[in-house]
Order: sequence, then structure tokens, then C-alpha cells
Amino acid sequence: MTREGEIIVAPATASGGALAVVRLSGEGAIALCDRVFSGQKPLIEAPSHTIHFGGLYDNQELIDEVVVALFRAPYSYTGEESVEISCHGSSYIQQRIVTLLLAQGARMASAGEFSMRAFLNGRLDLSQAEAVADLIAAESAAAHTLALRQMRGHYSQALDSLHGELLRLSALLELELDFSEEEVEFADRESIEHTMHEILQELTRLETSFRLGNVLREGVQVAIVGRPNVGKSTLLNRLSGEERALVSEIAGTTRDTIEQTIQIDGLHFRFIDTAGLHETSDRLELMGIERTRAAVDRAHVILLLTDATDTTPIEIPPLREDQSLLHVVNKCDLNPDWRAEIMGATPLGRGTEIKSDTTLYISAKEGLGIDAMRHALRSTIDTSELERGSAIVSNSRHLESLIHAREALDQALTALAEGLPTDLLAEDLRQVAHHLGTITGTITSDDILHSIFANFCIGK
Amino acid sequence: MTREGEIIVAPATASGGALAVVRLSGEGAIALCDRVFSGQKPLIEAPSHTIHFGGLYDNQELIDEVVVALFRAPYSYTGEESVEISCHGSSYIQQRIVTLLLAQGARMASAGEFSMRAFLNGRLDLSQAEAVADLIAAESAAAHTLALRQMRGHYSQALDSLHGELLRLSALLELELDFSEEEVEFADRESIEHTMHEILQELTRLETSFRLGNVLREGVQVAIVGRPNVGKSTLLNRLSGEERALVSEIAGTTRDTIEQTIQIDGLHFRFIDTAGLHETSDRLELMGIERTRAAVDRAHVILLLTDATDTTPIEIPPLREDQSLLHVVNKCDLNPDWRAEIMGATPLGRGTEIKSDTTLYISAKEGLGIDAMRHALRSTIDTSELERGSAIVSNSRHLESLIHAREALDQALTALAEGLPTDLLAEDLRQVAHHLGTITGTITSDDILHSIFANFCIGK
Repeated sequence: MTREGEIIVAPATASGGALAVVRLSGEGAIALCDRVFSGQKPLIEAPSHTIHFGGLYDNQELIDEVVVALFRAPYSYTGEESVEISCHGSSYIQQRIVTLLLAQGARMASAGEFSMRAFLNGRLDLSQAEAVADLIAAESAAAHTLALRQMRGHYSQALDSLHGELLRLSALLELELDFSEEEVEFADRESIEHTMHEILQELTRLETSFRLGNVLREGVQVAIVGRPNVGKSTLLNRLSGEERALVSEIAGTTRDTIEQTIQIDGLHFRFIDTAGLHETSDRLELMGIERTRAAVDRAHVILLLTDATDTTPIEIPPLREDQSLLHVVNKCDLNPDWRAEIMGATPLGRGTEIKSDTTLYISAKEGLGIDAMRHALRSTIDTSELERGSAIVSNSRHLESLIHAREALDQALTALAEGLPTDLLAEDLRQVAHHLGTITGTITSDDILHSIFANFCIGK
Repeated sequence: MTREGEIIVAPATASGGALAVVRLSGEGAIALCDRVFSGQKPLIEAPSHTIHFGGLYDNQELIDEVVVALFRAPYSYTGEESVEISCHGSSYIQQRIVTLLLAQGARMASAGEFSMRAFLNGRLDLSQAEAVADLIAAESAAAHTLALRQMRGHYSQALDSLHGELLRLSALLELELDFSEEEVEFADRESIEHTMHEILQELTRLETSFRLGNVLREGVQVAIVGRPNVGKSTLLNRLSGEERALVSEIAGTTRDTIEQTIQIDGLHFRFIDTAGLHETSDRLELMGIERTRAAVDRAHVILLLTDATDTTPIEIPPLREDQSLLHVVNKCDLNPDWRAEIMGATPLGRGTEIKSDTTLYISAKEGLGIDAMRHALRSTIDTSELERGSAIVSNSRHLESLIHAREALDQALTALAEGLPTDLLAEDLRQVAHHLGTITGTITSDDILHSIFANFCIGK
């Protein structure tokens, strides 16, 4: 699949810093670079993993003084001969260098093509290559840890071991078929069933881990809902320390959903400030309320905000099993008792009737009770699996493969229970292995590869 | 001035690409990096100009898999032991790495500190170091060429030769003083005067070259002025191919100055779309007109735009000697004769009475005559000095030093003409040399250095 002799080039860094890097990969990349480079000695004679200072020339015109790093095959990211050119960090120069190398016969790399070559040359498996893109995009400690583990192959090892176990089982069963006339049973059915159940359990665990994986990777979606003027925007501003949301005394000020993000203990929280839930005939507001419902639907956590001075009953939105509800009572600064309660000075006398395990008392305006609220938010997500180092699924492509694998395994277990012929059972187990294989890329098609790598950035 | 043992660290690339680079400089930088790096062998044992793959660790936690490039003193940008760490291009990782190295005893580099160290270690002179910042900021071919030449020392050589000549003259004169009792005249006064006049000529040429140098570096300021509704915004949109300026049929739509830039033949042109010049009592419009006058004052080129269908006389704004005027007649599409003229089909019959060397006929709406207009704009700037490779001043600090040098030289010439004592003449010539020396940094003070490098970006 790698087109022999095709040398790809792309900017590898964003421009705007002191330095910028342009990257080349493919057989002949060093010789190509040599044609426009003038340093102490020809690059082609230099050993791998060495750096060379010199000028890059477009005919007689000096484009820049650069530092060139050489990587000879297979000791590079792509596994191919590669060159990294560090130039001064101007986008003008970066563009001139890319243009110069294109004129020398290199081709502009497509998105993710360096990583795709790394995969095709066996330097990374597919889930490791995908983790590279996740790593670059990681904005929180948790997302970073998850992507780095996946890139290092911890996750692939877990899948490979399941994959190997499945192939071992089906090989055993197929061996029986070869000796079918002799009615030998190499594989003890009870032992096979036990192993299949163990694999099923692990597949189910992995499938379930996606909820955590997705939260670690994309952040925790928190929908703040409540009546108009209950202080949603003030709370958001308090949390993020910024004045992004429009704060006003007029009910219904927040017409659109506004997203703000904060980090709590290495986890990314994405807050959606929704339009207030209230009766209205205003068309714009109705649209806002519609968007509120959509935000609530997507959210992992619903933060129901009420007003300590407003005693009208509240309607709690219906929740799914995988959603958490935090009830937060705002404007506690307006009542001395509540205020004392937040400060931890006195136990709360009145108002206890609405207190529950997930009810918190705050004053967004004065910043009271905010730390406790952050703590409660963080507690909605159990990250012990991450801390234990378990394999966690964070990629929806992987989730899909796991669901297919689990379904195939269910079918195999039914086949076993119903005493179906050995060849059908073996075939079912091979199907399970096949689906797991698509995750690490043991089994792939061109189409799948291209759709995966097209989501990468250029230069990676 | 370099604080011995201080190792500085900074991100050297913008984040957001596939890769990011963190840079370290100072004695012990390699050993410092070694403490958090784990590769095939210790970095401290590796030779200069080699690259090493491995992991960066914060205690037991892997931060990223990186490629480390080693530069041993004096073969680095700064002239000191240096390390460049290429990591995955996430700002999270870049920050973690910088934090990790700070914890190991490195110090955050101030803006331009790498270049300042390069200067202090004699790797670059001051004007070369300043050119590095210009090179990074260069957005056009002309700015790039100018900065690159200055960085390569062409400009410094020209100044150094003048500087040397001045020191030679004053040394000759001082030699005379040592033998003053014998009334010897080592230096022929006529020959000295001749050389001084030659130097004066070159200083004056350099001073004058600043107009070009500034234009090459910052771009050509073009103020588009004309009556309301004459098509200024349409012309700007046509030139830039973008719909940035607000186009409307209502006179006085453009209330603010809007800047757009285009490149013509390697030169950057900055167009200021000004509010129309017309009588008004609207306060907002009055402010706009005030800004027009300021824009006209700053401009290198005034593009006076008139309407082919409007025959009321136009008032041409008063111009300085160093400003060019282009008179452009727009809306020629509304008259078939003018249209034919632009298309080059027939010679213009009527309307010739307002035609001049700098009058152009266009239709911004239909894109007629635009190429000729671009050509005329480009012709307002004579870049032959750049093409000849002459030293060109583009930095206002240098201009100031040159003015001081020229004034001191004028004074010396007066001293010579008035037959003032030899020691005063020698002293005057040393003053001229001193002012030239501040440009390349032969003579500097801490204050000047800090104010120069503070304008650099971090990591350079």
C-alpha cells in the first residue's frame, strides 16, 4: 500500500513560534533534501540520527538557515527514511520550504499519512496510531494518560491476548474436525465454555468502559438547568473565572447554549449553560428551551440549580440510569442561616427538608460552597479503572468492533449450549477474533484505513 | 552578563501541529535533561549533533515519547550547550515538559533570551540577532530577503567597514599627537577630508534607504481616499478577493478605517479604506474623516479614487515629497468608451483632459483595469537597491544611530574646515565610530540589550 519511492512532505508544527519544522518521509528523502541543502558535507554520507546545520537554497536564493535531522530506515517514526527540517518559525519560510521540496519531487502528505505509513510499516498497530491523534488533542491529564497508554500498546496487548485465546480455542476445535472419524474430543467442552465466559466478561467490561473512556477523552458534559434568573451564568462565570456568559437581571437573558470548560483534578468538565426551563411563548426562547432538552439528553451530569429564596416546587427532569443529578441551591448569601451552613459554622436548621446526598448550598455571587461543589462534580465520575491501569475503550470505532465481537461470542455460546456441530462453533469463535482484530488492525481494509487516518492532522 | 550555570527553557514552536519543540540552553542542559529522559543510553555520553529517542518521565509517570537533539558548546544557536526536545504537538504536553524541566532547576527563558545569549557569546552581532526576529515576522518575499541578508551579516559587514575606516582615521590623527612636538603630519588633511566625505555619502545613503527598508519590512501603506460611494470598499474587495469591507449603496457606510493587505510581486501592500472625504455633521462620520487624515499622513501612496460618472472637480489632498499619488477613475463600466479604453480595444477619445501619467481607468465592480492598477502600485516603490544587494536600513534603532553618526561626522567636517586641533577631530571621528558601533553591538549597554531582546518572542 505504500507507494514505493513516493516521498511525502508536510509542515509538522504550527507556525508562529521561534522555530517551525517541515517533515519528509520516504525512500530517497535524504538525497532529495541534499539537492537543496548546503552544509559542511553531503547529507547522504551522514549517519542516521545526526543533525546538520546549513542553508536551504532555491537555485541561488537562500531560503533559510536550517537544522536538518536525519533518520535512516527503519529507525524513524514512519519506519522509512525521514528528514526533519527545523527552520525559523515564519509561515512564509515554512511554505517556501514545502514548495521547494515539492518542486524536487516530493508529494504533499495527506492528513495522517505519516502515521498511516508507520502503521503499514509495522511501527504501530492501528489502535496505537489512533492514540497518536488522541495524544495531540489531549487537553487534560486524564485524556493524556489514556492516549499515552494506548499509544504505548497497553491496550493492544489486552486485546491481543483475547484475540490469541480465541484463535487457540478455534484451532483446538478444528483439530478435532481433522480427527472427526475417530470421535476424539481434544477440547473439553466445559473448559471451552468456561474460557468463553471469561472472554465474554472481559468484552462486556471493555464495552462498559467506553462510558468512562469517552468522558476521559472528550470531557464530562454537565448541563446546568434551572428556572430563569436562578444564577446559571453567574455560577458559570464563578467556575471558569471568566465573564463569558452574559449576566443580567432580566429573566431569559441566556438564549443560546454556551459552553465553558474547567479542569477538576485532571478531568475536563464541559458546562452547558442552558436557557432557563420555564413557560414562554417567545419563539427565540422556545428554541433555547429545545436546545436545553438536547443538552440534558447528551449530559453525563445534570446540575439542577435552584434559588434559595424561591420556594416554588421544582420539576426534576427525567434522568437516564447513566446520568448523575446534582441539586445545587444558589443565592444562599441572601439568608444568614444558609450562609453559616456553607461556611461550616452551624448545622442547617431550616430548609433541611429539601436536603439530600446530592444537594449542595452555594452562593455563586460570593463564591461560597464552590469548592464543595467542584468536589461533588468530580465524584460523579469514578476513575478508579484508569488509576488501576485497566484497558479502557475511548474510541467509538473500537466500541463498535467490541459490540460485534460480543454479539458473535453470544452466538457461539448459544451454539455450544445447543450442541451445534464443532465446525460452526469454531467458525463463530473465528468471527469473534476477526472483530477484535479490526481494532488493532490485524484485519483491515483500505477504506477503513483511509477513513481512520483522514481524521488526523497534516504532518502526523 | 550570561549568568553562569543558568539553564533556560522555553517552548520553541507554537502548539497545534503534529510536533512541538521545547528548547533548553546553558551549561549542564544535557545532564539536566538526562535526569528525566530514559533512552537507549545516557545523553551525557552522546556526541554533539545527535538525536535520541526515548521517554520523558515525571518520577514514574511517562509524559511523552520524545526525540531529543543535542548540541554541545560552542556548536549551537546560543553558543552554549543546548537541547531541543521534539514532543507530540499538544499544548498540554508542551506545558508538562516545560514544568518538568523547571522543577529540575531550569529557569523560564525571557523573550529573546536565546538570541541574547547568542549575541553575548559572539555567535551573532546585534543587528544579526535583530534580523532573526525580523525573519520570523517576515510575511513577504521582500521582507524575508532583507531580514535574511541582515542575519547573514551582509549589512554588518558594510557597517563594520565604515567603522574600521573611522577608527583608522582617528588612529592616524592620534599618532600625529604622539609626535606633536616634531610637527609631523602623518595624515594628509585632504585625503582625510576626502575619506570623510565618502563616509558621509554612505551614511546619507543608508539613512535614505530607511524609507525603502521600512516599506520592505512593514509593507507599503496605501490610503484609499475619495468621495462617499465612489467604490472604495468594492475596490478593496476586488483587490483582496475577500468580502471584508462593508459594501453598501448608502453614502458614508464606511465609518472606520479597515486594513487589508495584498502581495504584489513580493511586496506587501496595506490598504486603508478610509471614510469618504465629504462635508458632514454626523459625529461618527467626523471621527471617520479625522482618521482618514491620519491614514493619509502615514501613507506611502495615496490612491485617489473618483467616479467616472461624476464630473464635479476633486480636491487632491496635499502630499509630502516622499508620497506618491495614484489617481484611479472607477465605474468605467458605466461608459462604453472608457470600457473599451480599459480593454485596450480603442484609444480614448473623450475624457482625455483628465488623463495623466498616474491616472488609471478601472471598474472595480467588473474587475477591469485592475492588473494595470496593481502594476502602477508596484511601480511606486523602487526596489532596485534591494535587487542590487545594497545595505538597507530597516530598523528604526539603526536609523537613530545612523543619524547620530551623520551628525557627529558633520561636526567633524566642520572641525576640519575650521582647522580645529587634531585631538578634537580625532575625538569627533571616534564619536562617529561609536554611534555606528551601537548598531552591530560593538558598543552596548545592558539597558539597550534588554530593550532590544524584550521585543523577541519567547523561545528565540
